[in-house]
Amino acid sequence: MGSSALVFSPYDREVLEPYLPPRTPANHGSLPFSTLTFATSLDSAISLSPGVQTILSGPESKAMTHYLRSRHEAILVGVGTVMADDPSLNCRLEGITLEQQPRPVVIDPVVRWDVAKSKCLSLAQQGKGKAPYIVCIQSNPPFGQRKALEAAGGKYIYMGFEDAMTDDGFRFGWNSILTALRDEGLHSLMIEGGGSIINSLLVPPEVELISSVILTIAPTWLGQGGVTISPERKEKQKQLRLQHPKWHPLGEDIILCGTLRADRGNWLQQHSK
Amino acid sequence: MGSSALVFSPYDREVLEPYLPPRTPANHGSLPFSTLTFATSLDSAISLSPGVQTILSGPESKAMTHYLRSRHEAILVGVGTVMADDPSLNCRLEGITLEQQPRPVVIDPVVRWDVAKSKCLSLAQQGKGKAPYIVCIQSNPPFGQRKALEAAGGKYIYMGFEDAMTDDGFRFGWNSILTALRDEGLHSLMIEGGGSIINSLLVPPEVELISSVILTIAPTWLGQGGVTISPERKEKQKQLRLQHPKWHPLGEDIILCGTLRADRGNWLQQHSK
Ligand SMILES: NC(=O)c1ccc[n+]([C@@H]2O[C@H](COP(=O)([O-])OP(=O)(O)OC[C@H]3O[C@@H](n4cnc5c(N)ncnc54)[C@H](OP(=O)(O)O)[C@@H]3O)[C@@H](O)[C@H]2O)c1
Ligand SMILES: NC(=O)c1ccc[n+]([C@@H]2O[C@H](COP(=O)([O-])OP(=O)(O)OC[C@H]3O[C@@H](n4cnc5c(N)ncnc54)[C@H](OP(=O)(O)O)[C@@H]3O)[C@@H](O)[C@H]2O)c1
Repeated sequence: MGSSALVFSPYDREVLEPYLPPRTPANHGSLPFSTLTFATSLDSAISLSPGVQTILSGPESKAMTHYLRSRHEAILVGVGTVMADDPSLNCRLEGITLEQQPRPVVIDPVVRWDVAKSKCLSLAQQGKGKAPYIVCIQSNPPFGQRKALEAAGGKYIYMGFEDAMTDDGFRFGWNSILTALRDEGLHSLMIEGGGSIINSLLVPPEVELISSVILTIAPTWLGQGGVTISPERKEKQKQLRLQHPKWHPLGEDIILCGTLRADRGNWLQQHSK
Repeated sequence: MGSSALVFSPYDREVLEPYLPPRTPANHGSLPFSTLTFATSLDSAISLSPGVQTILSGPESKAMTHYLRSRHEAILVGVGTVMADDPSLNCRLEGITLEQQPRPVVIDPVVRWDVAKSKCLSLAQQGKGKAPYIVCIQSNPPFGQRKALEAAGGKYIYMGFEDAMTDDGFRFGWNSILTALRDEGLHSLMIEGGGSIINSLLVPPEVELISSVILTIAPTWLGQGGVTISPERKEKQKQLRLQHPKWHPLGEDIILCGTLRADRGNWLQQHSK
């Protein structure tokens, strides 16, 4: 148990339970249980600007994030986030074994991230987390990076690029990403950010792939110019409203759990008290 | 008691009490106790677009708004809001006398709003609310409008315009607005919107004029293109963080109370349990 180990109370765990992946994975063949989770300000910003790591939420919410990591087999972020923050992407809850650590997954289509120099890989080399899976187009990642990644137990997951080319660069469909992760044997996934990853999921039809939403709101305004969560509004789209919302104060922050899928709503009603 | 009268529970009232104006107005001469209050989506939108009235919060939050109106001597909105929504701006809580109704105050520098045709004035004529005070530059409002307004007990409040001219039109300083309202004998003010009114208050030094913040967040994303609350970020400005935040679930929404002023923080500590 390291000095920075975090504690998340049994009561708080119980509140979140209906929104978490089943403890015994469901039927084989289905896509991973995907929990969308992130922290925002009152003005829906997740950071002050793309390159600036911003502490928004308090220590209690941080402990929750690490508890959530312990309850998922993988954590997914975009390359923008790893480049900006060099995050650890491991679970620092007390008593977590390497086996229980989540697998970091980074969406990095053209391999901009130098994994060999990352904190995440260094932690894996020290046995404090798993090495990442990097989702990219079929290509030749730099040899040194690939060697270091594979030596630590990570890998590149190659996606077809014919259908993925857009004006914004290569953009894999979320159905393809989740299928690739299922094929790697991952049953549950926590999607943590950043802005463009989250916004791309909060539109139909991708939104149907989200099993649960657990977000943290801090009582602060970051002001104009931040990286904001605000889904594109499709014409005639109704409000994107969370079903079965549950608000749970935690320290100075609030946690909001909910679901966006009708079938998950039924599941929740059976499992909530 | 009309069929649309609203009920707000004693328990909920007690939670809000530390953030409300004192029941006996404080020392004479001080500016009105000003509570900033509005409802947003998760992506900080207060409406789908400037002209579209948007139901965000649930019936419980609506009852809270009316309770708040009963606890303030005046309600302030901008001309954008009255033009878009034609709001009632009265209190529909059960058992409220005309005397207890809040005074609507509309910031309408060049008198764009035709008060004579408004729901607000019509309610005043029926004795279901007070007639508005309209804050504008020294000018000659249309005679018919002025006659109707004054007959119902409302008035125009004229502000000097030398200092108020900006590229965006006439913009009165908030200190001047609150001073004018104090001079009308108003001790407490609830500032309800809309977007440009709120954003103009959430920057220093105006922010110091806000006594309390009580906001409602609904578990929904409105998506890009809405009227959003996001203060301008002044260089080197720190996060604008609410002090003494209190989260209170209400129906499917969450209420967030807090303060932005150091001296109010002290006041709260004395009055909270
Ligand atoms: N508060 C929080 O909870 C939280 C959590 C995480 C991150 N953040 C913040 O978020 C910010 C980063 O956000 P961001 O929007 O710049 O970056 P991001 O969402 O982490 O990554 C965006 C990049 O990922 C790739 N990508 C995204 N979707 C893809 C898809 N469908 N297929 C293929 N590639 C895809 C693209 O890479 P290419 O450009 O190479 O095409 C894209 O530019 C940072 O400031 C970080 O601190 C905050
Ligand atoms: N969800 C909620 O709680 C809530 C509450 C209220 C309103 N709303 C929504 O907000 C939207 C309207 O917002 P908005 O930003 O368009 O309008 P607004 O803030 O209501 O009014 C803006 C107008 O007020 C005048 N004004 C503002 N500050 C002033 C100052 N300091 N001095 C002089 N004049 C000033 C200006 O009039 P001129 O243009 O004539 O100069 C300005 O254009 C509507 O869609 C409404 O539904 C939502």
